[in-house]
Amino acid sequence: MATASKKRYWVGFDLGGTKMLATVFDKDFKALGSRRKKTKDFKGSRAGLVGITKTIDDALQDAGISRKQVAGIGIGCPGALDLERGVVVQSPNLGWRNVALKKSLEKIFSCRVALANDVDAGTYGEYRFGAGQGARCLVGIFPGTGIGGACVYEGKIFRGQRSSCMEIGHMHMQPKGGLCGCGRWGCLETVASRLAISEQAAAAAFRGEAPHLYELAGTDLSSIRSRTLATAIKEGDVVIEAIVQHAAKSLGVATASLVNLLAPEVVVLGGGLVEAMPQIYLEQVRKAIHEQAMKPFRTSVRVAVAKLGDNAGVLGAAALVADESHDRR
Amino acid sequence: MATASKKRYWVGFDLGGTKMLATVFDKDFKALGSRRKKTKDFKGSRAGLVGITKTIDDALQDAGISRKQVAGIGIGCPGALDLERGVVVQSPNLGWRNVALKKSLEKIFSCRVALANDVDAGTYGEYRFGAGQGARCLVGIFPGTGIGGACVYEGKIFRGQRSSCMEIGHMHMQPKGGLCGCGRWGCLETVASRLAISEQAAAAAFRGEAPHLYELAGTDLSSIRSRTLATAIKEGDVVIEAIVQHAAKSLGVATASLVNLLAPEVVVLGGGLVEAMPQIYLEQVRKAIHEQAMKPFRTSVRVAVAKLGDNAGVLGAAALVADESHDRR
Repeated sequence: MATASKKRYWVGFDLGGTKMLATVFDKDFKALGSRRKKTKDFKGSRAGLVGITKTIDDALQDAGISRKQVAGIGIGCPGALDLERGVVVQSPNLGWRNVALKKSLEKIFSCRVALANDVDAGTYGEYRFGAGQGARCLVGIFPGTGIGGACVYEGKIFRGQRSSCMEIGHMHMQPKGGLCGCGRWGCLETVASRLAISEQAAAAAFRGEAPHLYELAGTDLSSIRSRTLATAIKEGDVVIEAIVQHAAKSLGVATASLVNLLAPEVVVLGGGLVEAMPQIYLEQVRKAIHEQAMKPFRTSVRVAVAKLGDNAGVLGAAALVADESHDRR
Repeated sequence: MATASKKRYWVGFDLGGTKMLATVFDKDFKALGSRRKKTKDFKGSRAGLVGITKTIDDALQDAGISRKQVAGIGIGCPGALDLERGVVVQSPNLGWRNVALKKSLEKIFSCRVALANDVDAGTYGEYRFGAGQGARCLVGIFPGTGIGGACVYEGKIFRGQRSSCMEIGHMHMQPKGGLCGCGRWGCLETVASRLAISEQAAAAAFRGEAPHLYELAGTDLSSIRSRTLATAIKEGDVVIEAIVQHAAKSLGVATASLVNLLAPEVVVLGGGLVEAMPQIYLEQVRKAIHEQAMKPFRTSVRVAVAKLGDNAGVLGAAALVADESHDRR
């Protein structure tokens, strides 16, 4: 089986709304080469596919590996996916609809391709190689523009009846809460996402209560990134810290409910807000779990910050396609 | 293996705060005999063990089966359990603490004994033989005195890091909510359990707004059972219906969050309140899922009323011990 033995490298791909990242791994998941591009340079699904192909080819070149040596490509992708057919049904972040990503890439690269939700891939990466290694039940919570969630249970991503799920950002939190991006009201994202924080932060800047943030970003929601918030806090914007603390507390209350439901061994916190302000998130989530979760669950759960940063997604996606290959061999 | 082949009957046992029920099943889970006793007739764990033994022996006699023919006993039990050691760590409903139930019964009956949480056992019963047969992901929700929950995922009870979990009654629902039996504030049980309904119903009766309920139960919480509420509604207590509808709606909102998290194929509703007023619960839960759950999940989930009533627990417990025996054979 000369061909089979040659094909022993895995590609992990993270298809984000802002950037795409491809990394080539050997069989022990050591990174051999990598490439990053801006997603917005490839508009629409046809150009997107070209961009993905080029990014992978560049990463392969960086690693000194040929297409023929690739055993499989795992892709983490945001939005509504048909996992079994490998189709991006709808991804508002990418502006895609009904794109047969798996089939197209299998044709181009002549290898197995696995599609996964981006948060599932990142959480699986943390489970396999990061902050939650070997946990029997791990919950990943990633507050950023939205709030992603995932669960790895007994070594596999929890998929309900057969889809990506764990939509933690859409747990109902506020009976009289604001409008959510999902069209409903009072979801966790309306109180704890970066967008929810930015709304309040921009208003505080507008009212003259956050001079540092105002200098850094004005009152434009689009300019207020997680690092902007962290910097404003460091420079002395007390009100911005209060806003982030308040949001982190709500995230903690939702996490405590999740702990009561799923009794996880580890909760891994990641995403832009946590990376920028890990202490605030660790403290508020631990405090909320201590106050709100039931005793047997709260004493046995560990709360940790994600370890792998941007690499969680590519590592997880590569490991997923490798697992799939081994399962079906 | 004459002995092994003789041992082909299973006993399911439901150890409730009010009643205990033992049923003897053949290998196809056909009920052959049954016995019910009042739990309060056996106070404390020593007397409780005598009560359990007597109830099982009576059920065996009813079935015409001897102790020697029993392959295993499955016991569903409320409270905090150590599933691996088979110990009832603490059960407020029974007033027990650190009772090695599995070991004691294995000694008495010389067969395998499996301990399970009562809600897990009932949900597993509905999965194997009732309203959720064959579902890849099933959520059971049982509003009664408290609110129990469980999830069967890929054929097994979801157990987080290794315990009974899915404490749906302790999802945090009301930022300014009332005191819960678990010692925290604003849990789902404080707005949607039978006790929460009874508090409001008794107050309405006290205010003279619910004459039928007043006649049936006065203003005593202990006298207001699920059937009492159903009867008062039937006789025309409009305010009692509004209270139950309101509670069912809150249960629906929590269920919608669960649907967003777990993407189940089926939600099975059971327990005293649902058995007494199935239409109210079906309608409110379906409505809340329609309004609050995300589209791909709400369109693929089915909401059903439990089919097995009191038999769910004994059937589930018997099937669990049978599965365990087959796994380890």
